[in-house]
Amino acid sequence: MKIAVLPGDGIGTEIVAEAVKVLNSLDEKFEMEEAPVGGAGYEAKGHPLPDSTLALAKEADAILFGAVGDWKYDSLERALRPEQAILGLRKHLQLFANFRPAICYPQLTGASSLKPEIVSGLDILIVRELNGDVYFGTPRGTRKAPDGPFEGAREGFDTMRYSEPEVQRIAHVAFQAAQKRGKRLTSVDKANVLETSQLWKDVMIDVAKQYPDVELSHMYVDNAAMQLVKAPKSFDVIVTGNLFGDILSDQAAMLTGSIGMLPSASLDKNNKGLYEPSHGSAPDIAGKGIANPLATILSAAMMLRYSLNKAEQAERIEKAVQKVLEAGYRTGDIATPGCRQVGTVEMGDAVRAAL
Amino acid sequence: MKIAVLPGDGIGTEIVAEAVKVLNSLDEKFEMEEAPVGGAGYEAKGHPLPDSTLALAKEADAILFGAVGDWKYDSLERALRPEQAILGLRKHLQLFANFRPAICYPQLTGASSLKPEIVSGLDILIVRELNGDVYFGTPRGTRKAPDGPFEGAREGFDTMRYSEPEVQRIAHVAFQAAQKRGKRLTSVDKANVLETSQLWKDVMIDVAKQYPDVELSHMYVDNAAMQLVKAPKSFDVIVTGNLFGDILSDQAAMLTGSIGMLPSASLDKNNKGLYEPSHGSAPDIAGKGIANPLATILSAAMMLRYSLNKAEQAERIEKAVQKVLEAGYRTGDIATPGCRQVGTVEMGDAVRAAL
Ligand SMILES: CC(C)[C@H](C(=O)O)[C@@H](O)C(=O)O
Ligand SMILES: CC(C)[C@H](C(=O)O)[C@@H](O)C(=O)O
Repeated sequence: MKIAVLPGDGIGTEIVAEAVKVLNSLDEKFEMEEAPVGGAGYEAKGHPLPDSTLALAKEADAILFGAVGDWKYDSLERALRPEQAILGLRKHLQLFANFRPAICYPQLTGASSLKPEIVSGLDILIVRELNGDVYFGTPRGTRKAPDGPFEGAREGFDTMRYSEPEVQRIAHVAFQAAQKRGKRLTSVDKANVLETSQLWKDVMIDVAKQYPDVELSHMYVDNAAMQLVKAPKSFDVIVTGNLFGDILSDQAAMLTGSIGMLPSASLDKNNKGLYEPSHGSAPDIAGKGIANPLATILSAAMMLRYSLNKAEQAERIEKAVQKVLEAGYRTGDIATPGCRQVGTVEMGDAVRAAL
Repeated sequence: MKIAVLPGDGIGTEIVAEAVKVLNSLDEKFEMEEAPVGGAGYEAKGHPLPDSTLALAKEADAILFGAVGDWKYDSLERALRPEQAILGLRKHLQLFANFRPAICYPQLTGASSLKPEIVSGLDILIVRELNGDVYFGTPRGTRKAPDGPFEGAREGFDTMRYSEPEVQRIAHVAFQAAQKRGKRLTSVDKANVLETSQLWKDVMIDVAKQYPDVELSHMYVDNAAMQLVKAPKSFDVIVTGNLFGDILSDQAAMLTGSIGMLPSASLDKNNKGLYEPSHGSAPDIAGKGIANPLATILSAAMMLRYSLNKAEQAERIEKAVQKVLEAGYRTGDIATPGCRQVGTVEMGDAVRAAL
């Protein structure tokens, strides 16, 4: 089995190196091939998602992704900016199902900006649709406004759209995820305003009939943003569109106070997937050897479970991470008084030792 | 000067009655005329925004609005649902500038789900554009997908759009608000993905040249949702579009833990405005006499300041509210051990007595 390793920019190289180290110390061996992506792709080949990188990603059984982005590419035209790499991979590989768990580790509850009683034991899963919505909808661009009170003025425009089969496939993924957990699914939309959301909601209600054991509820996105602040533990699984999912999954991740711990998976219909930490490329701390590699190591564990069918190995890694946390190892982002503060490489070593 | 009083549904009638009582006890007298809106409009005249209500709102100098919505209207077609009243008023009266302060009152810091050190002293202002974006963009509807991987399937679609003059006018409002406060403005967009956002951002940068005393920064909406959780006090004024503003302003309000205290104003270009509490119609507690009227009373104060040019009277009301909080009066939503827990009417009476 072959893994495409795409470290990307900023801290991406450092954290991916630790995940690769951990994978290499399993009994099972994997073929791994590295390629440049994001700013690194642009530097190497003039494009954030070079053809050769895309080809490797297509050919591989799974993709381990670091992070992309750096201020220095801000002035490039949008098509050449690092983020296009991740959007391109999602689209070309049809990775439509994004799993983003927000888990508050017992050892790290204090890192949250929320009161401990609000977040301790938090364990929610956000299932975000990743191939549609206003992210990819056409037509889009700038033009003279064709109508309305500002007719003739220059305007920017995008198209928000979701079709029935698109919503159905993410609905099935979300219902099945809920079946394996607390059996409660909250579909988040803005059906009181948007036609796209009304269709989304109608399809959710329809698909729910096939999952009588799962309790489906609906929530407007503004209310969801409130309830995540007020009572995050009231959720089990949330399913939502690409745009709302972008916002709510980041909000939920930050509730835990330890976004440096949170992995994510983006899957196609055959469970081939791209695995990346929930956090970004953090160019401000890149190259300093202080980034937290645990989200990436846990993403590698998700990869073993979902795409490579090695659930036992995944569990071994997750247990090893638990052990290093219990032993008090902390990178700077999750450090507390009295902990054993370590750098990126030492943290990777600690996980390997705990395996 | 004439005030249109639109109590609406749920707790709307109860809380607006208290605000009217407070207004009536000022030396200055105002003409007030009441009309049904939302579910009440539908019951009385078959439409959430009856023509006569809209006419009154147009003719008045300011509008005091309660809240609209109730589960029992959920099965009506969208055009007849209560929310259409507020969308219709915003659109017909061109109320494009929504001011939503998120303030953590010193007496109520404990009500927040966030740690006291994260929210104590919080005082941010969200300026939300209210007439454009995907809320009102056309074309919209359901159709057969005209192209893409699901061509021919039924889809829901909406159009996100912003024109230059639309962004300019909200930019000026936001820069001027920032000038009167901490002189820091954060423009929130998703310019790494959306054409609409790129235009938004370009216009913000352009308008900023006229306000050299205000420091403008830009933030992606997903990051803004994170920073609001992590370090809400790092913001001064946030300006954003209709959809992102809907989500972020509710999130920010909930950070304070006392959304029952937060007023809002929606203004047109001449400072005529609609004033309403930030919270909703809470049908579950309607008619029980326990709703918190303070957000509505503070909305009336905002009305005096912005639309009726009575800043002194506004301040009198705001000081009276401070006094009742200091005296320990609390409705159930903000009650703490040892407080003087009161109902809606008693709270209104307490404010009147403190005037
Ligand atoms: C980088 C950006 C395009 C991307 C998104 O908006 O999806 C990121 O925020 C994410 O959530 O993975
Ligand atoms: C009721 C709804 C249409 C409205 C909105 O989305 O604008 C509300 O959430 C608000 O923020 O005033």
